[in-house]
Amino acid sequence: MGSLLVQKFDPLNLNFFPSESNKVIEFITNYYKNVEKYPVRSQVQPGFLLNLYPKEAPFQPTSLETILQDIETDIFPGITHWQSPNFYAYFPATISNAAFHGEMLCNALNVVGFNWISSPAATELEMIVMNWLGKMLNLPQSFLFTGNGGGVIQGSTTEALVCVLAAARDKALKQFGENSLTKLVVYASDQTHFVVKKAAKLVGIPPKNFRVIRTSLSTCFALKPNDVKMAIERDLESGLVPLFLCATVGATPSSSVDPVEELGLLAKNYGLWLHIEAAYAGSAFICPEFGHYLQGIEFADSISINLHKWLLTNMDCSCLWVNNPSVLLDSLSMTDEVLRNEASESKKVVDFMDWQIATSRRFRALKLWFVLRRYGVNNLMTHIRSDIELAKHFEALVKSDNRFEVVVPVKFSLVCFRLKPKKEETEESLKVLNWKLMEAVNSSGRAYMTHAVLGDIFVIRCAIGTSLSEEKHVSELWKLIQEKAQVI
Amino acid sequence: MGSLLVQKFDPLNLNFFPSESNKVIEFITNYYKNVEKYPVRSQVQPGFLLNLYPKEAPFQPTSLETILQDIETDIFPGITHWQSPNFYAYFPATISNAAFHGEMLCNALNVVGFNWISSPAATELEMIVMNWLGKMLNLPQSFLFTGNGGGVIQGSTTEALVCVLAAARDKALKQFGENSLTKLVVYASDQTHFVVKKAAKLVGIPPKNFRVIRTSLSTCFALKPNDVKMAIERDLESGLVPLFLCATVGATPSSSVDPVEELGLLAKNYGLWLHIEAAYAGSAFICPEFGHYLQGIEFADSISINLHKWLLTNMDCSCLWVNNPSVLLDSLSMTDEVLRNEASESKKVVDFMDWQIATSRRFRALKLWFVLRRYGVNNLMTHIRSDIELAKHFEALVKSDNRFEVVVPVKFSLVCFRLKPKKEETEESLKVLNWKLMEAVNSSGRAYMTHAVLGDIFVIRCAIGTSLSEEKHVSELWKLIQEKAQVI
Repeated sequence: MGSLLVQKFDPLNLNFFPSESNKVIEFITNYYKNVEKYPVRSQVQPGFLLNLYPKEAPFQPTSLETILQDIETDIFPGITHWQSPNFYAYFPATISNAAFHGEMLCNALNVVGFNWISSPAATELEMIVMNWLGKMLNLPQSFLFTGNGGGVIQGSTTEALVCVLAAARDKALKQFGENSLTKLVVYASDQTHFVVKKAAKLVGIPPKNFRVIRTSLSTCFALKPNDVKMAIERDLESGLVPLFLCATVGATPSSSVDPVEELGLLAKNYGLWLHIEAAYAGSAFICPEFGHYLQGIEFADSISINLHKWLLTNMDCSCLWVNNPSVLLDSLSMTDEVLRNEASESKKVVDFMDWQIATSRRFRALKLWFVLRRYGVNNLMTHIRSDIELAKHFEALVKSDNRFEVVVPVKFSLVCFRLKPKKEETEESLKVLNWKLMEAVNSSGRAYMTHAVLGDIFVIRCAIGTSLSEEKHVSELWKLIQEKAQVI
Repeated sequence: MGSLLVQKFDPLNLNFFPSESNKVIEFITNYYKNVEKYPVRSQVQPGFLLNLYPKEAPFQPTSLETILQDIETDIFPGITHWQSPNFYAYFPATISNAAFHGEMLCNALNVVGFNWISSPAATELEMIVMNWLGKMLNLPQSFLFTGNGGGVIQGSTTEALVCVLAAARDKALKQFGENSLTKLVVYASDQTHFVVKKAAKLVGIPPKNFRVIRTSLSTCFALKPNDVKMAIERDLESGLVPLFLCATVGATPSSSVDPVEELGLLAKNYGLWLHIEAAYAGSAFICPEFGHYLQGIEFADSISINLHKWLLTNMDCSCLWVNNPSVLLDSLSMTDEVLRNEASESKKVVDFMDWQIATSRRFRALKLWFVLRRYGVNNLMTHIRSDIELAKHFEALVKSDNRFEVVVPVKFSLVCFRLKPKKEETEESLKVLNWKLMEAVNSSGRAYMTHAVLGDIFVIRCAIGTSLSEEKHVSELWKLIQEKAQVI
């Protein structure tokens, strides 16, 4: 049969691929070198780009050079620069050469590892790195594939929570009947990230059955087990079914740490699923000196950690371990003819699509493998420790100025501080003052911090440790804060 | 204050970044050049890598060169090569220079665009490209931000479905009361991907309320609106609440197309949420000649398309448009002090975290923008059309051999064929024979195809169109199939 004379367009043109890619690398290198020149928090107004760009996609192609130029001119002003060493907002999203190269390869191979046969190495490498990481974190064997548990890389904590909540829910529905769904209750503290509430709502647990248990400065905003116990008892008395307890280790507002062991014993006692949400602080537990925060982890059913926050893996890499995968699979596994294959039927393999929401999945294990191997546990511990040192440094600077106070002692790399109350100053006026200070810093473009409200105390959050952070940046930040405090 | 003498480790070392990155680019280029040398479907046995690698992460660093060598030696044998032009399994996961470069920049900036202020350009560029794409697909204004709708990039169809199902569910719960959850019913065909069932289960709709409506060869496996109507009527009579109808346009088993307009009228009539699931075929609708498949789309509430299948965007890029975002937001939006900011409170901006499951999100709009601009609509149409031409070419080859038959006419780029039944041959023995043929091809390593069962007809699915596919590959595939058919 002759040629089809199909008009040809070559989307993966290997003649251009290397040279174009090298241009992009050069562009990126320059970006990092100049990142401190841009305002950290974007200073644009709503609509800045919407109003700039045409309403329709171009019919004809545009060159790479033009697009890179447009990124510089049009896009960069609208970027809040998470990779700037002057970024202290939210939590850092750390990156590394190793993860970047792992991502490049993940993108290049572009395999879709929903089940084992769709790329056996994608599944087995994920099992290997999740075991490695589990051991680095000193998780019990029961959470590793070498025990009867296992770990999986998800896209986000919310996705991980939807999975474990659905598993806990379906187990309960089996026990108490389908109509018990509206009776299931979830417990967390007022420091817990709203994603737990969102995930609970997503799986159909009525929002009114989500118990937000108050914490206070007296425990550095950790849950009191007795408060949880009382809430559970109240719900039992009302004929409800306590289902799920989330212990947060390193909560977003102030990095508070709930007492895992006591909550674990409580959960076991009442038959609740205990999840440890350690999105931010979890990465620190590769250093043995922080291991005590996870004491009692053997009583938990699941734990999630966002490596893309602190462990240099770029977005996204959210790790979930469970000690009883079969409960997860009962809830998430579906039979499907199109994906039927001998390996899956042999039950000798893991099919990760049954461990998550989506069917498709990226080969994220590759970048985690890159990070763990290229740096080794030793350098990764140094990375965590040096960030914590920088945070302690900043904490000391704040304490040395008697206009300021550190509101809760620094545990990890987050410092919560504020301008101190003067005599008879109300929390409300103090809040206004500190908001003003924070805004003065943020609108200068020289640094970006965000806030939290702990109990009724408004604090400025200084989350330290981007991949380019050095001591000088922290010192400069402090000078900037002092300068702005002088003005307001 | 003096130096902290913190031990230093530099995860984003700019001295090494360019040269190392260029090495990775070179490695990737060689991979593509040699990809046809590897068996398409991995031929390894379960445990091949688990048994090879140490049980613990290395303490000291490993060089990039060693890791790249290990990928070649250890990982590649376990890869099922989705980018091989001899890959015909599932649906292709197409890639391009443009998307690869967009991903590199997304990874390099590594901004987390949960709300507008966290990187305004990430949000506004996503709105722009979702409008552009919506227009390319000829979606009604009501699905665009320039109407009162809008689009969002998600990670997967399942995530998109969880969001719209939760929105539909919460709207119904408001109307019928919280206890009506166990009465809600979801409708789809037996060709619909299992992710719809999975998503419905995830949001708490009892699996027994998931109606799988049978299709048959007589409609080329499209839903008959009257069958749906009867199912709805039956459920209404039983006191149930029909909630959600999924119309599939280009279903996975045979790319069947449900009649959108008739189902749309039905859905409106009975007050059901109509979702159009066009994960695979949706990309084709940028070509006007396929527009008729979406006729009646104005009756739908939402539509999802996985660009990472056919529109060259690498994993992942799953697009969801809704014509009433406020219903989505009612279900997914959470108030949170830590993320409170002036822009969000002004209501002048979109915060995409309220349009999806996760809070965090990657700057995926960048790669879609790269693809649309670097190629232009013209080349993208050529890309779709040339794949369809290749599929028609393969269809003609199958038809020219009287041992074979094409089971359903080719609509897009998927060909479902089989060895024809001989006199008095049972479907069961024919299935065994065709499975044997498929396995003979797959275990040769020279091509990879998967299967489906349509009604009770076992078919081999040949999904055409990787980014490196050329006519010669399709012709070689056919020779290979003929050769294996001869042997069995």
